[in-house]
Amino acid sequence: MTILLYDLVGQDDRRFSSNCWRTKMALAHKGLSFSTIPTKFTEIRNIGDGSFTTVPVIDDDGTWICDSWTIANYLDERYSDRSPLLAGSDGYQHALFVQEWAVSRISTLVFTMIVEDIYAQLTPEDKEYFHMTRSKRVGRNIDGIQEGREHRLLDLYERLEPMRKVLAESPFLGGDYPSYSDYVALSPFIWARTVSAFAIIKSGDPVYDWFQRVLDLYDGLARANPGYDW
Amino acid sequence: MTILLYDLVGQDDRRFSSNCWRTKMALAHKGLSFSTIPTKFTEIRNIGDGSFTTVPVIDDDGTWICDSWTIANYLDERYSDRSPLLAGSDGYQHALFVQEWAVSRISTLVFTMIVEDIYAQLTPEDKEYFHMTRSKRVGRNIDGIQEGREHRLLDLYERLEPMRKVLAESPFLGGDYPSYSDYVALSPFIWARTVSAFAIIKSGDPVYDWFQRVLDLYDGLARANPGYDW
Repeated sequence: MTILLYDLVGQDDRRFSSNCWRTKMALAHKGLSFSTIPTKFTEIRNIGDGSFTTVPVIDDDGTWICDSWTIANYLDERYSDRSPLLAGSDGYQHALFVQEWAVSRISTLVFTMIVEDIYAQLTPEDKEYFHMTRSKRVGRNIDGIQEGREHRLLDLYERLEPMRKVLAESPFLGGDYPSYSDYVALSPFIWARTVSAFAIIKSGDPVYDWFQRVLDLYDGLARANPGYDW
Repeated sequence: MTILLYDLVGQDDRRFSSNCWRTKMALAHKGLSFSTIPTKFTEIRNIGDGSFTTVPVIDDDGTWICDSWTIANYLDERYSDRSPLLAGSDGYQHALFVQEWAVSRISTLVFTMIVEDIYAQLTPEDKEYFHMTRSKRVGRNIDGIQEGREHRLLDLYERLEPMRKVLAESPFLGGDYPSYSDYVALSPFIWARTVSAFAIIKSGDPVYDWFQRVLDLYDGLARANPGYDW
């Protein structure tokens, strides 16, 4: 059976959700066949039995799972004969730390650089919901929040230093091969690349080289996503 | 054979080296018997064959190893029958990421809060060397660098968020049990606690609770270190 993934979509089929990208990379890592169902924010309530409020959601032959972290754990348990994502305590703790680092230290800053670009590329029916919820999340109107973003690139560069140091030793955060830690670290970058011409990392940075390597994985799965070319 | 560890020392037997603490915790984790040899900065050149420029250095029955990361890898290889520190790709990559995060994002900031306190507690013969090398390292005279440190605590608090989130799930960064990731994360905190009355984390923060748990490990090895009570 092909696994079905409900995947956020904007205009022109842009799949910008960082959380859905974690799951797409996880499914590809496990070598599992999957199809995506493009889903607008305002359509999430129609998924399955109507109980879901966020994506990703997968339907694996009648087993419904929500939340990228829960899905990764489910895939390792259900498909334990395939390459592990975070099976074992060390892999789990590794991916968890990198995820919490990427969410709290990287995505929050990247948000201030791309959130108006996301808004601009949403379908008309999603704009009001997005504007309201994201303004509430950051405690201010998101209009104008991207202003001066080029001056925040140095802060982002410094925050990425742990990753840069690890990548001086090995091609992936997982070592010689990618692990779920790479997919959670990927998520703020693919999020930005899908909606924004503003390159948050640039050639010459080892993090950029890593990003290009991850875009190439699984026959260029992430690279093929409609977006900008950086 | 008892392993010998050359360990930095200040006045009143204060063992303040963050890198030496990684190795002490690693040796205790492996259940290995070890003795420390108190060593001043200006005595490092007298260790062994005179080729060493930094500590920790261990002498394991004639095998000399320098550098905390190299030592951790050596201990796992040499004592592979004992509880692993970072054996296996996932554990290695986990500890490496946490180490690079702690060094580049946490220790550099903590440095600005405690470096004059370290200087004050050095033995007279080490003061000139330390003042010169540390001023050079940060590109300014370290005198006065601690000024306003209380205003930098919020930045430190925010930088610690990934760790705080992981500790909401498990008592240690390693999960249910401590791993080398916990010892590298410990190092900036034990460094500060040994030399400074200025508490960089406080009760009520999950990171503080974790710190107290790690101080208690191995019969309170780190807690017994002369220092301040926070």
